[in-house]
Amino acid sequence: MPKQVDHRGRREAIARALWRVVEQRGVAHLTMRVVAQEAGISLGQLQHYFASRAAMLSFAMDFASEQTSLRVGQGLEKLGDRPHPRDVLRLTLAEMLPLHADARATSRMSAAYVLEALHDEAVHEQARRGLVEGRALVEQLVRQAVADGHIDSDRDPATETNLLLALTGLTPLIELEVIEPRDALTAIDLHLDRLFSGNEMRSSSGGLQWVP
Amino acid sequence: MPKQVDHRGRREAIARALWRVVEQRGVAHLTMRVVAQEAGISLGQLQHYFASRAAMLSFAMDFASEQTSLRVGQGLEKLGDRPHPRDVLRLTLAEMLPLHADARATSRMSAAYVLEALHDEAVHEQARRGLVEGRALVEQLVRQAVADGHIDSDRDPATETNLLLALTGLTPLIELEVIEPRDALTAIDLHLDRLFSGNEMRSSSGGLQWVP
Repeated sequence: MPKQVDHRGRREAIARALWRVVEQRGVAHLTMRVVAQEAGISLGQLQHYFASRAAMLSFAMDFASEQTSLRVGQGLEKLGDRPHPRDVLRLTLAEMLPLHADARATSRMSAAYVLEALHDEAVHEQARRGLVEGRALVEQLVRQAVADGHIDSDRDPATETNLLLALTGLTPLIELEVIEPRDALTAIDLHLDRLFSGNEMRSSSGGLQWVP
Repeated sequence: MPKQVDHRGRREAIARALWRVVEQRGVAHLTMRVVAQEAGISLGQLQHYFASRAAMLSFAMDFASEQTSLRVGQGLEKLGDRPHPRDVLRLTLAEMLPLHADARATSRMSAAYVLEALHDEAVHEQARRGLVEGRALVEQLVRQAVADGHIDSDRDPATETNLLLALTGLTPLIELEVIEPRDALTAIDLHLDRLFSGNEMRSSSGGLQWVP
């Protein structure tokens, strides 16, 4: 009987090897040969799992998105049954910034991926779809927060969503140590305070409590 | 007598060839050989001007920053003798986004450059210095606007500066056609309206007039 192989596990191990290459050596070194080496397998074995560099990158990016969602999900669990939309947004934005090793790996992956997407049609479609879906989730959250009275109804959810996602623009400032991670969180908190201003009371713990 | 060669002009022509490679083919193709080909010179001639890929990239990035400053400067001239700080910021931010061909080239250059900086010490130092200087200019503008009563004095100039620079985070949304260029400008205008809110009157032309 042939040995059972955990294909999904193998592919994830390869994706993690790819992340390490991107994070530690840079996207310029991202070839199938280098990833195979980093994953400790032969090029032939790697090609068994991914037919091309684009297919490998594609899977690694999907896996990165999943891992980010997982981290956000784990953070949400700690916020209790009905987390405040401000806290959900803060957690989501913080996980999109390179503030810890895992988030840094996925952030760098994502930056490299957008650059690749500009010159590869298949990557472009996948990257675009991912961004459209992520943006839609945030806009849905903003619309619900408006409906629930957490955000003023005169705010335009589409533009507020774009301004929230724009906060990932703090990334180069953090990566090149122009600002400290705490400065980035201060900026995010200030932006969120203004978005939710007038409709909430800040709790003494620094989180926000909805006042019914 | 040897032929006079315009060295600065040659280097700029090489930098522009490098931009075209980054914009049209992507940073993965950014080798000295490809740039030489794009510039229509031999690899040896290219190496006469730049000893390494890093030196070439370094010059191309400095040149890109100069060109962006030049475009902002040309825009400022049209704003008259004492441009309003809101208009200066709008112009600066708009030129940092990939909203037209030249800005797209420098924006892509800049994104590729930040990724390179993470794995090359010399590039890191230069990129960091550029960001620190650019950030300082924006913060100086914000501080002056506070001093002149254009922005409320209870705003923290450092955090407001970080939030302004974060608006470059709209770049992936524009590049991957998730939002339209006009959506990006709407978001920037809304952010600037709030920054200057309470201290100004909006003119009917859509620009801002300071009311003394």
